[in-house]
Amino acid sequence: MISPDRFLADLERLRHFGAAGVGKGVVRPAYTAPDVEARDWLAARMTEAGLAPRFDAMGNLFGLADGPSLLLGSHSDSQPTGGWLDGALGVIAALEVARASREAGGPAISVVSFEDEEGRFGVTTGSAVWSGGLSLAEADVLTDHDGVSLAQARAILGDRVGPDIDPAQFTGFVEMHIEQGPTLDTVGEQIGVVTEIVGIRDRVITLTGQQNHAGTTPMALRRDAFQGLAAFNARLNERFRNVVTPQTVWTIGHVSVGPNASSIVPGEVRFSMQWRDGDPDRLGRMEEIIESTVQEIASEMGLTVAFGPLLGLEPVKMDADLRARLEQAADMIAPGAWRTMPSGALHDATNLSRLMPVAMLFVPSIGGISHAFEEDTDEQDLVAGLRVLAHAAGVDQALT
Amino acid sequence: MISPDRFLADLERLRHFGAAGVGKGVVRPAYTAPDVEARDWLAARMTEAGLAPRFDAMGNLFGLADGPSLLLGSHSDSQPTGGWLDGALGVIAALEVARASREAGGPAISVVSFEDEEGRFGVTTGSAVWSGGLSLAEADVLTDHDGVSLAQARAILGDRVGPDIDPAQFTGFVEMHIEQGPTLDTVGEQIGVVTEIVGIRDRVITLTGQQNHAGTTPMALRRDAFQGLAAFNARLNERFRNVVTPQTVWTIGHVSVGPNASSIVPGEVRFSMQWRDGDPDRLGRMEEIIESTVQEIASEMGLTVAFGPLLGLEPVKMDADLRARLEQAADMIAPGAWRTMPSGALHDATNLSRLMPVAMLFVPSIGGISHAFEEDTDEQDLVAGLRVLAHAAGVDQALT
Repeated sequence: MISPDRFLADLERLRHFGAAGVGKGVVRPAYTAPDVEARDWLAARMTEAGLAPRFDAMGNLFGLADGPSLLLGSHSDSQPTGGWLDGALGVIAALEVARASREAGGPAISVVSFEDEEGRFGVTTGSAVWSGGLSLAEADVLTDHDGVSLAQARAILGDRVGPDIDPAQFTGFVEMHIEQGPTLDTVGEQIGVVTEIVGIRDRVITLTGQQNHAGTTPMALRRDAFQGLAAFNARLNERFRNVVTPQTVWTIGHVSVGPNASSIVPGEVRFSMQWRDGDPDRLGRMEEIIESTVQEIASEMGLTVAFGPLLGLEPVKMDADLRARLEQAADMIAPGAWRTMPSGALHDATNLSRLMPVAMLFVPSIGGISHAFEEDTDEQDLVAGLRVLAHAAGVDQALT
Repeated sequence: MISPDRFLADLERLRHFGAAGVGKGVVRPAYTAPDVEARDWLAARMTEAGLAPRFDAMGNLFGLADGPSLLLGSHSDSQPTGGWLDGALGVIAALEVARASREAGGPAISVVSFEDEEGRFGVTTGSAVWSGGLSLAEADVLTDHDGVSLAQARAILGDRVGPDIDPAQFTGFVEMHIEQGPTLDTVGEQIGVVTEIVGIRDRVITLTGQQNHAGTTPMALRRDAFQGLAAFNARLNERFRNVVTPQTVWTIGHVSVGPNASSIVPGEVRFSMQWRDGDPDRLGRMEEIIESTVQEIASEMGLTVAFGPLLGLEPVKMDADLRARLEQAADMIAPGAWRTMPSGALHDATNLSRLMPVAMLFVPSIGGISHAFEEDTDEQDLVAGLRVLAHAAGVDQALT
């Protein structure tokens, strides 16, 4: 039977590996001692739950049930300065559901904690390699900010590493996660059933005008690259109105002005343009609008424009059946207090969609805060998420 | 008699002290060996012209005529990478006018080359100290980018230094300079008679919103500091339309976004807001508009705003009589090809206005370029400027 107390106690225990800062902060990046110690503890808890713990070469830790099974989980590594829930929540919820199901003679449930979801090397690195999106050889040469290669870093795993885990034994993957955004917390709801993980487009755009003396260059003769960016931004926001949905987001997050001095008319501005949506067609229409708008502004203002490469990840639809099971569970456990919503952030489920049906559910992030020591979620919402996950996995809902 | 050839030859000779880069580039910052060698050469040329060369403690080099005299000149130090004209033009033009006047038995004309106009230490440092705007003790503790103090740097002057030069012997100051902007070059005119040196206001403004995940934070819930800056910029440009003249300029030249990452909604943006105009009332009205507009935007977008100190220099009107003499000369020498205009850049004349009547004239900067190796002016425009200066100083216009 599902035990909220045991679940919360395990979550609390996991937090102490790398506990840092005030409150519930955690510093447990991939392949650090706290990360590997946490995985050893998890492996022991898997064994106690009757699951067979297995590390693959990347350090992804599976707790295997016998025969074909649903796979539940997430990741237990953290950001350099992170919170206690993030991926840890999905791992411990999976452990509790698998353990309770086994105790009750329910369906076979396996558990996973992927490694380096937070991207010390690459992006969602452990699940990218396991799902074949990235080869181990490609991954091994990736380096972190200190120049350490992944090959060097994963040597810490030593003799834990075993053979590859065959994905064919899993019938699907369900990941529970904190929302990492403010939507559920703002509307006061407990559960978000994810419809899709949005696609991302990201490109660097450079506008070049003419660097000039800010005292002697009349406004009418300026070709001010920063003014170009500001005009582009305004016109883009206007044009996007007819194209976007309330879930679409776009961000100019990085801006670099040259030469960046108060007495010099900016000759160059380089900025990041990132946009996310669940619909690949909409991502494409937005791309066209961005390109034509920046070209227009450049031509009007006497600037030249250069586009960096277009980086992108396609949207991933959640599996209809798994999603329906989550919706039914949410409606039972949090009636009137759940919604469907896209995931604006990437997750391991993105990679796993190459291998099997995937689905996700969210619980609220207080204040929308994540990747920070202050990250937190109300206990009753954590438990509601656990119950929705268990119900969707076909596990008995009686509570101890 | 005014000799364009002698003038151009001296200008060319001066260029060789610190000649650098391709074309006519010059590297002759204040108190470097090329700067002091150039001053020694200038002092010798002054002596040959019948003027008494005198260095003051700052390294300002005066070539004194007997008795009361008009003072002509500018500065012979350059930017770290500068052009051959900038201040050098005004110094050599002054030398030629003083020399020709003395030869022809004309009015007494003295010459000056101020030191560190380009601000290796402070701003227009040599003339600031001579005019009493800055004490020598205050100036001596100023340091350059390498941490060298002015006191250390000016030790290179050695025993050149003599007593202070009494400003009471000068009846006024006229400075010829390149425009350092594109106006004259764009309209194809030869001479600009300066009406005033504009005043400057400069302040750093910080907008603070909420740093957030760029994937999971819906547009409607964002408090994006960069969007605040862009909205402020647009509204400000709109509002200034009813207040500014074609000579007014304003610039956002420095922008610093925090944390400045493509996947993070900017939580903070710090930017410079600089504006210049010849009318102190207009500068004040613009200040009010900036303040109320940024407050409005901050309130509409859920941002907070912090203002840095308001830095400023007051506008300096040119002396009506000296200016009238320059206008009369320009109309004779460049009929239909001159205009009155403000100076958007600071000059030594700003400081000298504390001591005596001042006036300025400009010749075109090709392409508006200055403070760069490419800085240049057509020879015929240089000579036109020389002749206007001579005529305004009451010196015989016959040419050799």
